[in-house]
Amino acid sequence: MYTCLDRRGNIYSTDKSVWMQGRSAWTFSYLCHVYGKREEWMAAAKSCLDFMEAYCINRKAGGRMYFTVTADGKPLRQRRYCFSEGFYAIANAEYYGLTHEAVYLERARSAYELIYQLNNGLIKDPTGLGPKTIPETRTGRALGDPMIFLNIIHVLRRVDPEHREEYDLRARECTDSIFGYHFHPELGCTLESVAPDGTPELDYTAGRVVNPGHDIECSWFVMEQANHIGDADLHKKAETVFRQAVEAGWDKEYGGILYFIDCLGKPTEAYEHDMKLWWTHNELLIASLMAYRDTKDKYYLDWFFKALDYCKAHFVDEDYGEWYGYLRRDGLPTMPSTKGSTFKGPFHLPRMLAMVDTMLGEILCQN
Amino acid sequence: MYTCLDRRGNIYSTDKSVWMQGRSAWTFSYLCHVYGKREEWMAAAKSCLDFMEAYCINRKAGGRMYFTVTADGKPLRQRRYCFSEGFYAIANAEYYGLTHEAVYLERARSAYELIYQLNNGLIKDPTGLGPKTIPETRTGRALGDPMIFLNIIHVLRRVDPEHREEYDLRARECTDSIFGYHFHPELGCTLESVAPDGTPELDYTAGRVVNPGHDIECSWFVMEQANHIGDADLHKKAETVFRQAVEAGWDKEYGGILYFIDCLGKPTEAYEHDMKLWWTHNELLIASLMAYRDTKDKYYLDWFFKALDYCKAHFVDEDYGEWYGYLRRDGLPTMPSTKGSTFKGPFHLPRMLAMVDTMLGEILCQN
Repeated sequence: MYTCLDRRGNIYSTDKSVWMQGRSAWTFSYLCHVYGKREEWMAAAKSCLDFMEAYCINRKAGGRMYFTVTADGKPLRQRRYCFSEGFYAIANAEYYGLTHEAVYLERARSAYELIYQLNNGLIKDPTGLGPKTIPETRTGRALGDPMIFLNIIHVLRRVDPEHREEYDLRARECTDSIFGYHFHPELGCTLESVAPDGTPELDYTAGRVVNPGHDIECSWFVMEQANHIGDADLHKKAETVFRQAVEAGWDKEYGGILYFIDCLGKPTEAYEHDMKLWWTHNELLIASLMAYRDTKDKYYLDWFFKALDYCKAHFVDEDYGEWYGYLRRDGLPTMPSTKGSTFKGPFHLPRMLAMVDTMLGEILCQN
Repeated sequence: MYTCLDRRGNIYSTDKSVWMQGRSAWTFSYLCHVYGKREEWMAAAKSCLDFMEAYCINRKAGGRMYFTVTADGKPLRQRRYCFSEGFYAIANAEYYGLTHEAVYLERARSAYELIYQLNNGLIKDPTGLGPKTIPETRTGRALGDPMIFLNIIHVLRRVDPEHREEYDLRARECTDSIFGYHFHPELGCTLESVAPDGTPELDYTAGRVVNPGHDIECSWFVMEQANHIGDADLHKKAETVFRQAVEAGWDKEYGGILYFIDCLGKPTEAYEHDMKLWWTHNELLIASLMAYRDTKDKYYLDWFFKALDYCKAHFVDEDYGEWYGYLRRDGLPTMPSTKGSTFKGPFHLPRMLAMVDTMLGEILCQN
């Protein structure tokens, strides 16, 4: 799957993103799950799964996966983070849900276990890359770890009821980690990076970073978990994550969700912090509608429509289809505009469309 | 030296940039060189030099240096690139030029030699980090290597005439590399990354990246070299690098130099590609005035004034002093605005002011 596509859909880079191979395989499988199997969707999913199996796994490093490979599958880059493995896990799990061929579940569970071991420091990273920051000086926890793992569990649990107890236990560890360490009501936010014991590290920029889109995505992962276990308190806490993120992250001047903000209102170091990215807005549409579906609180429905208006006005390309990936703070696409990149492909947008479609159906049935 | 400063000069991160320790020590030494020694400038330079010596060198990795350290000097991050070492080299060299204490020249020459060995693949990187891209799949040349090395040579040659022949030889290697590999008249640009033999790699984004500010900086490094060896052809080639970069990189809609462009006009992958950074405009002021001083071609003077008008209108903060570091494409600062960062401190702006001041004096004397 090539994902570096310009405004008209032409390929501007032939390098392949491993994240996007997994995400694409998941998306096409999920479309089959929601709308029924279609041959072209199954084939697209299978193609990405086969490509990953053949070219994206670093066999010399305990099944760790690459970050990018060439068009013909030669490895380009190994990164320390294990998100390639996470998307590989949900892709194989979702495809197993359609085919019930054991090999796909085995692959998904093997990657899921590898990530669990890495996230919890139970094994040494087989790539040998080590942490980005010298651990004798500073270590910490990253919100992405429990959050993405919770999403992996959601998919696995649905297709693999046999390991249900283990999934429930580990999902609980994820929400404990999110609320025990990253959620800071005294600061009114959920922090991306905290000390090992959850203490905010407010003296330097990385310790103050809030990624509102990430928090909003996290909020609906947690709402799904709360619904699964029937925990109303957990749902309420997820709603708080959502509210804090959207109210701090919404750009009062130009509209849209800011990419990064600082929990104390100080400068953030990422140059692109004030840009508007497509995916944060996809997450806002999902999370606001899910919160509305679950609570019937009009506050959430208002956010859904506010987000929808912004997206239609700024992200949608009426002339060439799809959404722009990257807008400047003022809501205009950066130029030359793109429809895809190493990070943008068939994932956030179709996931949002399918989930919102499903949830709208549920809401209409409730009424 | 803390450099993460907000609009009013308050420190927003106590982590210290090793680049900026070296650059600051160079700048304060250079100010003494240009304007005469001042106690506070000497003390500032010495403080940064001492801090680097005590805390910024990875003694377990052959003198490679860290990228960031904590306020009290604990190592935070080791990167593969050897630019910390480059700024350490010019800092120690410039300080040696003021004090003639042999230890500073030894330190400068030792770092200079380490960089030479690394740039030319004569030693294995003692950090063991290895290249970012898996070298069995793809290797290449980075413009930053010969360009920064040429700047190191300029400083060393001035204070250390004894090794003049070696400096001249290695400077020649740098300009051969810039023009033999990176300069591509058929594409009308100077490429950041090329194949080992200089072939442009146009199928993927990284192979098409043009950083106009980098090229403009490179052009004045080469003009200095051309002036030093009295090579009029080399000066002409440097002028071509400048002209191509400024004409392709100047934003026709909003003014200012774009951060990154694609040599074929395709999308670039860096989110921040359309931002306006302070340093590229400092380089434009230096390079345009140097080209005018050397050629008397009004074309270059026009660029100098055009750049100056843009900088006064957009970068200068009339209320709190200094220049904003980071502007959106439309010329407004990203918010909250900053006066410093891990990359912005007392370097590009004071270097520009001192060099432009000197060159204006030279131009007035010529007339």
